[in-house]
Formats: sequence, structure tokens, C-alpha cells
Amino acid sequence: MKPSAFHPAGAPAATAAACDIGMVGLAVMGANLALNMADHGFATAAYNRTTSVAEAFIKYNAQTPGGLHAFADLKDFVRSLKRPRRITILVKAGPGTDAVIDSLTPLLDKGDCIIDGGNAHWEDTIRREKALRDKGLLFVGSGVSGGELGARFGPSLMPGGDEEAWNIIKPVWTAIAAKVDARSGKPLLGGEPGTPVVAPPGVAVEPCAAHIGPRGAGHYVKMVHNGIEYGDMQMICEAYDLLRRIVGLTPNECAAVFADWNTGELDSFLVEITADILQQKDPVTGRPFVDVVLDAAGQKGTGKWTSVSALDLGVPAATIAEAVFARLISAVKDERTAAAKTLRGPAHAHYDGPKDLFVACVRDALYCSKICSYAQGFQLISAGAKEQGWTPDFKSISAIWRGGCIIRARFLHEIAEAYHARPDLPNLMLAPFFADALNAKQHNWRRAVSTAATLGVPVPTFSSALAYYDSYRSETLPANLLQAQRDYFGAHTYERTDQPRGNFFHLDWPEKNRPQLQVEGGGGH
Amino acid sequence: MKPSAFHPAGAPAATAAACDIGMVGLAVMGANLALNMADHGFATAAYNRTTSVAEAFIKYNAQTPGGLHAFADLKDFVRSLKRPRRITILVKAGPGTDAVIDSLTPLLDKGDCIIDGGNAHWEDTIRREKALRDKGLLFVGSGVSGGELGARFGPSLMPGGDEEAWNIIKPVWTAIAAKVDARSGKPLLGGEPGTPVVAPPGVAVEPCAAHIGPRGAGHYVKMVHNGIEYGDMQMICEAYDLLRRIVGLTPNECAAVFADWNTGELDSFLVEITADILQQKDPVTGRPFVDVVLDAAGQKGTGKWTSVSALDLGVPAATIAEAVFARLISAVKDERTAAAKTLRGPAHAHYDGPKDLFVACVRDALYCSKICSYAQGFQLISAGAKEQGWTPDFKSISAIWRGGCIIRARFLHEIAEAYHARPDLPNLMLAPFFADALNAKQHNWRRAVSTAATLGVPVPTFSSALAYYDSYRSETLPANLLQAQRDYFGAHTYERTDQPRGNFFHLDWPEKNRPQLQVEGGGGH
Repeated sequence: MKPSAFHPAGAPAATAAACDIGMVGLAVMGANLALNMADHGFATAAYNRTTSVAEAFIKYNAQTPGGLHAFADLKDFVRSLKRPRRITILVKAGPGTDAVIDSLTPLLDKGDCIIDGGNAHWEDTIRREKALRDKGLLFVGSGVSGGELGARFGPSLMPGGDEEAWNIIKPVWTAIAAKVDARSGKPLLGGEPGTPVVAPPGVAVEPCAAHIGPRGAGHYVKMVHNGIEYGDMQMICEAYDLLRRIVGLTPNECAAVFADWNTGELDSFLVEITADILQQKDPVTGRPFVDVVLDAAGQKGTGKWTSVSALDLGVPAATIAEAVFARLISAVKDERTAAAKTLRGPAHAHYDGPKDLFVACVRDALYCSKICSYAQGFQLISAGAKEQGWTPDFKSISAIWRGGCIIRARFLHEIAEAYHARPDLPNLMLAPFFADALNAKQHNWRRAVSTAATLGVPVPTFSSALAYYDSYRSETLPANLLQAQRDYFGAHTYERTDQPRGNFFHLDWPEKNRPQLQVEGGGGH
Repeated sequence: MKPSAFHPAGAPAATAAACDIGMVGLAVMGANLALNMADHGFATAAYNRTTSVAEAFIKYNAQTPGGLHAFADLKDFVRSLKRPRRITILVKAGPGTDAVIDSLTPLLDKGDCIIDGGNAHWEDTIRREKALRDKGLLFVGSGVSGGELGARFGPSLMPGGDEEAWNIIKPVWTAIAAKVDARSGKPLLGGEPGTPVVAPPGVAVEPCAAHIGPRGAGHYVKMVHNGIEYGDMQMICEAYDLLRRIVGLTPNECAAVFADWNTGELDSFLVEITADILQQKDPVTGRPFVDVVLDAAGQKGTGKWTSVSALDLGVPAATIAEAVFARLISAVKDERTAAAKTLRGPAHAHYDGPKDLFVACVRDALYCSKICSYAQGFQLISAGAKEQGWTPDFKSISAIWRGGCIIRARFLHEIAEAYHARPDLPNLMLAPFFADALNAKQHNWRRAVSTAATLGVPVPTFSSALAYYDSYRSETLPANLLQAQRDYFGAHTYERTDQPRGNFFHLDWPEKNRPQLQVEGGGGH
């Protein structure tokens, strides 16, 4: 163990070029990630604009395996780093990140590497990477998932940037990342937050960190990860709602159902904590905790970014978008409370089938919808990568999500296996493992969705996912009528089923509805 | 009738200050709108960058009530206009619009007015309006809906800009717009394209043109109009698909159903042309026309803009977004054809109930979903207007959509009445007329959605609309669980049902899952 030290301005020469890595920003994520680094034996320099925060950080963490050095002066902080320097920034994403970069760059030397571990928008990361490259500096935009506990004890890390930059940060990134059993994909002790990683004898350990691709690739994948997380959370909420409103279970009974599901194919962090949450009592009232929590969801924007990117790139990620919209409609609580007095539900809203059967239907709806949501997320990464000029390794991406991050799940090991077997899988649903699951479980899934529709319980993501599945497996969709409409009112032309793609035709619609015009052409639809 | 004239460069002084309005851009929309202006007695000046187009335009339209003057020289064109000058631009939206504006402005005088009738993004319109205002010029961004036929014989016009600018263009805009019977809301002859407006005795005529609001308001409302149009078209496609795949109707039988629907509450341009389209034979093969049209939908982006704006503003316009995503999934025809071989539908996919009953279910699903989609669109206008600092008049907006545009429908008259009765209606679904309809028809709607889910026919907008309805009328949604999850893994805090809004709490979750950290705070979820 090495002692921590706070260095006032004019730090002693002894620290010069002594630290392995630096951290700018000691709010919750930065502080925890710095501790994680120091835990793994890296001498870690730290800087925070408000010096008292840095002082307190050192005071509360007096001893670490690698040693912590906090600096009052940014110049001293930079001077304390071995070259090429590795400096991680963890500040609130946005202009603050640019301000830190601007203050650092004059102090750096060619070949030094800045890593932004914040939730930056990938377009900002592309811009910053280019600007720093022009100055001879390396830049990594790295997704860091797992919240404060992940940061502290092993996050999932999604770095994007030059291969050269990755090689410089790789020893640190692989050390601090969550770890999984390479064979089973299960998070190792410490992959679950709060405990150090101890690999059992004979177990090959894989870190949840891999180079995603150049420029903004890491932050793009992190964004989609968050969009998928929105989907997972909303789907769990719909399952819970069906259990309560249709099956009539209490929160405790729901907790038992989720705990049971967590032993099977739905085994995941979010299902596990849902079981915990549902058996939690409110310390104030003693009531079930969920019953005192207001049903108005917040969000920080990454789900929205994901949906906007899907729209921009023309990827049908409808289920993820529905999850974002579901949070939005939850937020208008007062409007809903008023509307509940006017807009009625179905006259007959009682489920009278066997409870166990419907619980199984909900479970399968959750699993099948999850497959669709992940399929959409991976399609989006594929389209984003294509547009940005890099090649995603889906096996690697799903593998590093098996531990550390909020969406970690047994499921992701199966996704990694699917992409291992077929790296160019056109859609996750087509992998034999998942196609079989969808084929086998669809009956229950349909039953959950149709029962919810009949009984008046909203299931926006379950039904959107089902529409996605049924659309994707439909050789013929009614868009032929839509194209005919567009040709009718806007002369937008159509392709024919009996002609090769890329040939466009226009029908001279009967005079009745289309008086001859002097000019032909298209409208804007 | 007055003769048309083409004026080579160096036009005779006789045309100076003689024309009432000018048109730049003689592609399909501009040419038709110019003819519409001339038809209504306005001496109309015309300019097109490619002079031969302007010459041909004059040649094909030798006589009009107002007179057409095309110019080879932009200066002559400008000089030909009475002051304050009114110049409409109808070119492909984007940099072309800016180029035309830049070439016009040096030739104009203070108080002159430029009108952009293209499908501009409202943010561009805001930018242009400001730039021109700084130069002492007026600018109107006007939505023009109805395609080429609307432009020619009466479009729905949605102008945004200063009140002063509106007053200058008002005589022209109200003259060329589609007309409806003020009392019934029905398009008058000529409201349907191709025939001049003849108001029967005693009928008060209302033009489908009204000042929407300042700056980008007109183009914003036009964008949402197009988003709603995406919804309408997709919903009709889903209805058609259910009639064919579940009820087993032929295209001709479907046509009869739509024609029947067009006599009732679904009476609308799109339902009417759907009936026409479905009875249309392919001239090449003699087969039903829809059966030779490829089911891969195109789009020009305004539906996407609408969905992105909804996400940006936090408005749950999920049904409109589903319509956009449905076009996108239709577009991957080759993927779908391949997937159809792997992903199976339900084992039992046969509807064995009475056909007439299910046709009625589909009709009610279409009508109820339409109410939800319009409710979302109006919510979006409300949020957009609030952000942009103007106050929408929903009665006026729905009234000008009753004629001329693609979404014109009896339905819009009922919406106008609802907003007339209660201008501050929080949501269209709450208007007594529509609340009653939803309450009465929901049983059939639910039956259509649940049957589609059971039998494997995708209904993304019908089911999304139903989820919207059921969410909006749910006093309690499962977002309480979601907030608990966010507090659990990210310390994002929660509000309580037993405390006033705006008070945020954090639970100290049990040690098991949350080892104590040195620092507290939030992650990024």
C-alpha cells in the first residue's frame, strides 16, 4: 500500500514523471475510476478545479496499492505523469469537456493521450479527436458504463480512437474493467460490484474492455448501449405492470417472480435488482417501496440520442424509441391523472385464466421483446459504423457488455456466441439460438400482448417489438399500398414486383381524380 | 383573359411595377402555384434559372385571367412587381433557397416580402426570417400542402412570419387557397382538385389559409402536418393488411370496404383514393395494381423531422414515429424475404370469427388510432410553439387542413369544433366528441390489435396508438419501478407519492448490492 498525497501549487520535483495515469474531475465517476486505477497498482495523479474536493479525496483515501497524488496546480498535475502521458477526463459532458481539453493541450507533448470517459455525444468526440490529432495529440472517447459502482469496482469500457492510442491505454483499461469468465460469460467476483476479482483456478478471465473502433466509435456504441438499457428497463416495467394489474400479484409476489426469472434465460443485473427493489420496504411508511415512488420517469438524453440516430440513419429501432416515449408519457403525471377521469378502459377488464400460465406469457414476452430490442440496437451500430467508416466487431461488443455495465446479462454471452459463429449475421433474430427462442416462445408473447390490449394495460415496447418481429419476417408488407398512394397524389413513382429493383414507374391515374396538369413532377411526401 | 408574355433580358418599361406577385422557380409546385395565382386575377411575374423552362411555361399557358409574365433577367422580374413586392420562392428546399434569397435581396427595397413556399426545415426559416428582417425585408415561410394538384387548384396554406408580412400576402393567399364550406367543413368544388370553386347560394366560404404565427411557425406546422400524414398512410396500410391477411378480402373487396368507410366518420381524401387505388388494374398485366407495386416505401424526410422534434421536445408522439419506422422496415425488402424463411409466424393463424365483425373492428381501430395520432401531432405543435415563443390557434390550424391538403377529412372539421369549444384543450382525446368515440369504439379497436398480435400481422401504429391511449388514461404507470431502478444503480433520486412534486429522495439501498462508496452522486442514465 502506498500513501496518498495532496500537492499544493509548486509541487516537489519528486513527483515529476512518476505517475502512470491522470484523472481530471473528481466528481462521483472520476473519483471512483481514479480509485479503481490506484487499486490496480497504478500511481494515479488527480486534479479537480475546486481544490478542496481534491484535498478531501486524498484525505478519505489515504492508502492505495498504486498511490494517489492530487494537485492544486494543473501544470504540476501534468508534469507528474510519465510520458506518453495518459490523462482521463471525467467531467459533465459538454462545454466543460472542451474547457478541460483547452487548458490541458498547451501543457502536453506530442504523443500524449487524452481520454474522455464522460457521456459525450459521439459527434463531439469525432470533432475533438480530429482537433487533437491536428495538434499531434492522441484522443480516446471511451464509454464507461456501470455507474459509480462500475467505475469503482469494474466498469464496462468502450474506448474509441486510434489503434496507437488504444495500445497506450490498454494496460490500464483492461486492468480496471469488469472481468468475466471467458467460458461461461459470467461476471467474476468483482464483476459484480463491490468485491475484488478472484479468478477461480482454471478459469480464463476476460476484461470487459475492447477497442471499439476509430474516432467516435466508442461513444457511439456507449450511446446505443444506453438506448438498449432504456429498452430493458421499460420492458421490465411492462412485465411488472402486467403481473400486478392482470395477474393481481403483490410487490412481494412480483419480487419472487423476478427472482425466479433471474435463475433462467433472463438472468441479468436489471432483473436481479428488480427483485430486490420489489421486496424493499419504504423506511418511512413501511409500505412496499415501489408504492411510494412517483411514477414519473426522468432521463438524461442518451435514449433520445439513440432514437434520433436511428431516425437519421433510417434504422427501424422502434422499440427503443417506444421506451423513450414511455418515459415521456409517464412524466405527464398530472395530465394522466386528469385523463383517467374521462377516458375509460375496457368494460370487461378481468383476466380469468390460470395465473401461472399468464406469468409464463409475460416472461416470454419479456425475453422475446429483449431479443428484438437488441437486434435493433445492433442494426443501429452497424449503420452508424458504416456511416462513420469503421467495422464493428459484434462479438467483442457483446462480450464486453457481459460484465460491469447495467445491461449485463447471461443473454449477452449468447449474443457473443451468435456473432462468434457468424460475424456477419444480418440480424440478431436470425441467429439459430434466438430464432429458435422466438419461434418457441412467440405463442406466449402474442398472448401477453393480446391480453394486455384486451384488458387495457399499455405495453408499448412489447407490442412494438412484436410488430418489429412480424414485420421483419413478412416477405410482403402493405407498403405497396403506401407507394401507390404516393404515386397517386404526388407522382412519387413506384417499383414493380415483376421488374428489377431500381426501375421506377408512374401510373397515369384516371382522369376522375387527376385532371391533366401542364407540368409533371413530385411533391414533398 | 389576358395574354401571357415572355420577356427577354432588358424588358420593356411597360411591365415595370405592373405585376401583383412574383414566383421564382417553375418546377412542378412553382408552376402550378403561379397558374393558380394568375387564375385568380393576379398579374403574376415568373422567373426560372433555366430560361427555357420559363419560355415553355408561357407557351403552354398563353391566356390567364391575371396574366403571366416570365422574365429572362431577375432584375427585370423584380422591377415588374408592384411595391411592396411579393415574391414567392418554390425551389428544392435547402441551399438552393438561400441562393435565391441572396440573389434577390440586393434588388429589393425595404418592406418588400419574400415568401418561401418550399418544404424548408423550420429552423432554416427562423434563420432566414431573422437575416432578412435585419435587412428591412419581410419573410414568410409558408407551408404549401396538397402536392401539384393542390398547388394548381387550391392548396392548404400555412404561412408563418410577421403579422405585417401576412397582411401583405393575405389577399393572394386567401384567394389561391382551397375553400371549404364554413358550416360543414366540406371542401367546396375546387377544394377537391381540378374544379373551380363555386360556392352554392347561402354557403359561407372559408379559405384554407391562415396566419400560423411568427418566424418558423408555418413551416413547423407544415412539418407536423406531414408527420400526421405519415401516420394516416401507415394506419390505412395496416387496415388494408388486416382486411387482406386476416379477413381474406381481395383488393376489389377491400376497395368496397374503403369506399364504404369513406361515407362515414373516416371520410377523407386518403381513404377515398385508397378505394380508387385498390380497384385499379395494372395496365401491363391486368392484375390488381397493388399486387404489382413493390412493398418498399420511400420517404423524403419530413416524417423523420417530426419524430426528431418530438424526441427533442419530449413529446410522446410514438405513433407518428412508428409510421416512420414502418416505412424503414418496409424498405429492407431483401432482408425480409430472407428472414421469412427462418422466422415463423404463429402455428394457428386462421381467423374463424364473422368477417363483418372483424371489418368493423378494423374500421374502429383505424378511427381510434387516427385520433391518437392527431392528438400527438397537436401536442407536438403545442410544445414546438411554446419553445419557439408563439401561441398556436388549433381551431384555425385544423380548419385550414379541412381542404386542399393530403390529410383533408371530415374528421378535421370535428377537431376544429372541439378546439372552438375549448381552445385550451390539454389533449385532443379529451374533447367530448373524441372521448366518446374512444370509449365507444375501444372494444373493437382492442379486438383488432389483439387479433393481429395473435395471428401474426404487424400493426405497429394501431398498437402504438392503443398503448398511447392506455398510458395516457392510466393514473398510475410502472415508471415507479423505473425510477426505483435508476435510484438503485445510479442514485438518480426519486419523488414520492406522499410528498409534493419537486422533492427528491434517495434510498440507502441495502449493503448486499450497494457497498458504501466514498463519494455519492449520479451516473448517466
